Amino acid sequence: MKTKIDCFPCVFKQALATLKLATDDREVQIQALKEIADFYSHKELDGTPAGFSQHAYRIIAEVTGAADPFSAEKKKFNKLALQMTEESYKTIVSSGDKLATGAHLAVAGNIIDLGIGEGLDIHGTLKSALETPFVINDLEKLRKSLAEAKSLLYIGDNAGEIVFDRLFVEIINELFPEINVKFSVKSTPIINDATWEDADAVGFDKVCEIIETGTNDIGAPLEKVSAEFLEDFNSADVIIAKGHGNFETLNEVVKENLFFILKAKCEVVAEKLRVKVGDSVLKCSARFQRV
Amino acid sequence: MKTKIDCFPCVFKQALATLKLATDDREVQIQALKEIADFYSHKELDGTPAGFSQHAYRIIAEVTGAADPFSAEKKKFNKLALQMTEESYKTIVSSGDKLATGAHLAVAGNIIDLGIGEGLDIHGTLKSALETPFVINDLEKLRKSLAEAKSLLYIGDNAGEIVFDRLFVEIINELFPEINVKFSVKSTPIINDATWEDADAVGFDKVCEIIETGTNDIGAPLEKVSAEFLEDFNSADVIIAKGHGNFETLNEVVKENLFFILKAKCEVVAEKLRVKVGDSVLKCSARFQRV
Repeated sequence: MKTKIDCFPCVFKQALATLKLATDDREVQIQALKEIADFYSHKELDGTPAGFSQHAYRIIAEVTGAADPFSAEKKKFNKLALQMTEESYKTIVSSGDKLATGAHLAVAGNIIDLGIGEGLDIHGTLKSALETPFVINDLEKLRKSLAEAKSLLYIGDNAGEIVFDRLFVEIINELFPEINVKFSVKSTPIINDATWEDADAVGFDKVCEIIETGTNDIGAPLEKVSAEFLEDFNSADVIIAKGHGNFETLNEVVKENLFFILKAKCEVVAEKLRVKVGDSVLKCSARFQRV
Repeated sequence: MKTKIDCFPCVFKQALATLKLATDDREVQIQALKEIADFYSHKELDGTPAGFSQHAYRIIAEVTGAADPFSAEKKKFNKLALQMTEESYKTIVSSGDKLATGAHLAVAGNIIDLGIGEGLDIHGTLKSALETPFVINDLEKLRKSLAEAKSLLYIGDNAGEIVFDRLFVEIINELFPEINVKFSVKSTPIINDATWEDADAVGFDKVCEIIETGTNDIGAPLEKVSAEFLEDFNSADVIIAKGHGNFETLNEVVKENLFFILKAKCEVVAEKLRVKVGDSVLKCSARFQRV
């Protein structure tokens, strides 16, 4: 999808939050903000929002020297999500439709993200995630695709959230034992996106193969990912892409076997999905689009 | 008060909202955002937040040709507030402490501002404004100052809100008939700040003398206002300054007779006031500061 003018202030909002994690030195923070402003004074709005915003993170890393400002946040979020594993697993086991329950838990990571810092109600959050229907719901199409599949590429999103992705993959393993699952992480840190270290921390290697996108670009821009990732993307029988960044970079790839699972967190993405901010969707990429 | 790094993304957020009112032409909107980014890539954060942000409005006016993008909003807001006059007046007349009621109504404008677009509950908003105590409350000090005063400079803020300022001035006229009141507006449009046109539209000239700040700078920066305004500022027995912009530009002027009435709408101002975002205050400028 294309960058909108609304993405312009959002870049500076994201940059500020990142800078506060990267350094306490006000002069360095101001220098970074000025360099970001200088960069965006020349930047065209012709790519994806993910591609548009990530230059700010690169500039912050260069100016502050902090290559992974979200490191502590990611560890905290992984730990918090891991504490929810047992209850989440019980929920799945007692569920009438394990695939649906798993898909709902897979978006729970986004919901928990919003709750952090405000006193997280674990039981309430899980209950709410399971009770809130997908506003766009292509679950039956996903179920049918998985039933015929031998391979699944699951494109990961944030740290913490990947604990629920792992649970979803465990369900898929149980329900569709014929499928070979690969889960992708970023090759090096960008924002709070999951890397090998995060996948390792939540035991993802115990449930499937972990691969890298070959880049630290936000999402999975096909012109930037490694040849190996691209081959997996092109050859997988089913692809599940989690979160904003993956939707922003892949939504124009029209495939009957490509499914997005995300919570719309801003007006730009919500408008593209034709839903409201806060809505969760499980959407086949071919929906709304000419195949 | 001094600009903080948090003001940097806020400028772009304000610029986007203003640009959407100023023009529908995406290319012009992008051009303005780029020129704003270019300007702020060189801007020091050494002045007030009000002074920092207003360059964005100047650039928007230059690039879009729209000198008063909030014109329609201001008219709408004035009209809406005028519809509340009768009920507000009844509330004052039946009140045990008319000055306190007037001061609470004077911050009601800010509260109504937030409610617009979400189905405004006039009765509820007024009731809430009257029942919500000032978190910092120097009302008794203001009452004492007014009792001894012959002149009051009331520095206005936004369109719409000025309807409640007018009611407050009417009460002051009734309670302290010895006082000569002057109410100030901006000389030319900036954001949704009140100008002569707005004061005229809400009948402010019927209750006191209207003066101008001599500039369209946000707030009332004393190094920018006209000599006439400065003379009024220096000679007034009491000064009431409404809203964010006036607080941002005058809070370092330590005077026992200078009172700020505002609702804290952002973290930067709330922190300076030592209150929470959303809190209302009636604060003497000498409080917290060495006189």
